[in-house]
Amino acid sequence: MEKLGKQTVKFNTPPTLLECATIVGPKEGQGPLAKYFDQCLTDEFWGEKTWEKAESKIIKETINSVINKSGIATADIDCCFAGDLLNQCISSSFGLRDSNVPFFGVFGACSTFVESMSLGAICAESFASNVLCATSSHFCSAEKQFRFPLELGNQRPPSSQWTVTGSGATIISKQGFGPYITHITTGKIVDKGINDANNMGAAMAPAFIDTLVTHFLDTGRTPSYYDIILSGDLGYIGKDIAIDLAKTQGYNIKSNYNDCGVLIFDKDAQDTHSGGSGCACCGSVFSGYIFKQLKSKKLKKVLLIATGALMNSMSVQQGETIPGIAHAISIEI
Amino acid sequence: MEKLGKQTVKFNTPPTLLECATIVGPKEGQGPLAKYFDQCLTDEFWGEKTWEKAESKIIKETINSVINKSGIATADIDCCFAGDLLNQCISSSFGLRDSNVPFFGVFGACSTFVESMSLGAICAESFASNVLCATSSHFCSAEKQFRFPLELGNQRPPSSQWTVTGSGATIISKQGFGPYITHITTGKIVDKGINDANNMGAAMAPAFIDTLVTHFLDTGRTPSYYDIILSGDLGYIGKDIAIDLAKTQGYNIKSNYNDCGVLIFDKDAQDTHSGGSGCACCGSVFSGYIFKQLKSKKLKKVLLIATGALMNSMSVQQGETIPGIAHAISIEI
Repeated sequence: MEKLGKQTVKFNTPPTLLECATIVGPKEGQGPLAKYFDQCLTDEFWGEKTWEKAESKIIKETINSVINKSGIATADIDCCFAGDLLNQCISSSFGLRDSNVPFFGVFGACSTFVESMSLGAICAESFASNVLCATSSHFCSAEKQFRFPLELGNQRPPSSQWTVTGSGATIISKQGFGPYITHITTGKIVDKGINDANNMGAAMAPAFIDTLVTHFLDTGRTPSYYDIILSGDLGYIGKDIAIDLAKTQGYNIKSNYNDCGVLIFDKDAQDTHSGGSGCACCGSVFSGYIFKQLKSKKLKKVLLIATGALMNSMSVQQGETIPGIAHAISIEI
Repeated sequence: MEKLGKQTVKFNTPPTLLECATIVGPKEGQGPLAKYFDQCLTDEFWGEKTWEKAESKIIKETINSVINKSGIATADIDCCFAGDLLNQCISSSFGLRDSNVPFFGVFGACSTFVESMSLGAICAESFASNVLCATSSHFCSAEKQFRFPLELGNQRPPSSQWTVTGSGATIISKQGFGPYITHITTGKIVDKGINDANNMGAAMAPAFIDTLVTHFLDTGRTPSYYDIILSGDLGYIGKDIAIDLAKTQGYNIKSNYNDCGVLIFDKDAQDTHSGGSGCACCGSVFSGYIFKQLKSKKLKKVLLIATGALMNSMSVQQGETIPGIAHAISIEI
């Protein structure tokens, strides 16, 4: 691999996305992408006593599923990258506790899935035969931790997003027949002073634009190079901001840009306000929907840019603004 | 680089640890290693209004310090790996908010420093000229978050450890004259069923042994190869357990093994019970003390194994046991 421009790495022997798997919750199973997910749960608890244990079970079973689908023996997976939104990333730690695979914990908030894939691709080109990447989020555990316990019945403002319950996982292999990871553009932390924890789209959109524009400058590409440019979870409000911000930078992305948080729910029928969010938003939409479009050649060139808000509930209480980050990965067949 | 055995990566053109920096709190500044730290604060708040903001300032200034000491321009740092113990790793995110460097957030609990260095070394051999790695912890923010607010004046049991206030940071470069990172052995999650959140040494020691023994098997080395084998923060209790467990595996490490948590405080004079802990324990002891011993050739071969407990306060309340992890890095001049 080699560095390209300021923040991009180009892979000379591009690693293959060998297989993907995804499990989602009941609400996601009633949404427009339901048929693309491997499994849609009917119960937020999935038989567990707590939401946190349910989330761990979801990521654990998604990992088991991607390993089974890939036909790769666990012993042939050289390392794993995983992370989630829970304090100290316990969903991933407990979900991977019995995996017996060397484990790198990562935290990029909702950008975690692409962060994992970026590092997985670096390992696959440099020393690893197979790398496992996974992430999860859960609406109930996230609301409890970041906002209010659901039992309080708090109203959610129109700018709020609905954390996706689910998990996405992929295996990246040194050898294979694609889809290939050709480039990664790793984001910097961008903080434009947004401090409304119920408007994550606005907080993260500037980071998305920073990484998007850097990717174009580093690679010499323009928006039209890609069949689709997909952000992780900017939602409806963040998507509009992103289109406007891109225009101010001289890029028209309106025709081939969309957002996983916009795609995963039916806004009107499902009452999800500004759309989906969470690590599993990008994780499940990519692993379920986009990966299948790549395999069937309906999409040939995809730029996936996962976005994250690097805050916690206490930082907002202490008057801090919300730093955003966005990591891009270019995938082609 | 190439994979060696089960979990080890051997670097063919070993990256250099170009420079290290460390800032610690007042208690660490009264301990036996005080003279090795770049700066010892006299105030836990360092002029900030909250412990969390103080911790962010500590990691931020430590990063500024290592960049200044290295003589590398920020624009020539290709990426950064950082993480900490606070929920959603906010110390690192806020500390690096203005850094303008592509950012990979990592979470390995107290193993974060070596996890960062491991990934930094992979990047340095594969595409990056310079990689920044950093971590932090703070006694007051950690007690508040993981146990009880200090204002309650709770008694701490004898098996508890004292979270180090401070930060350690390093720059890993593709080219340089050492000390060199020659191998990394990435740990698996190991959970032996310990559920006492006040006995982290016991929870993490099995992970330390798993990684230590794997490192020896993968490399064909024995304990005597190294001048020192150093665990991150097993403390007094964990250190004794580790020596005993190593013996059951056929390895005598008693003569050249020590622990950063044992080294950083004076157990009797400083009332720190089982010793130091936290991301900054390993981070500051390595960056302050060990790095200088390597530079002055008093140590020539070091095996640093940082240990982490992958839990949060809620997981213990929900009856979960405490999974441990340990990442090893072999450093030679």
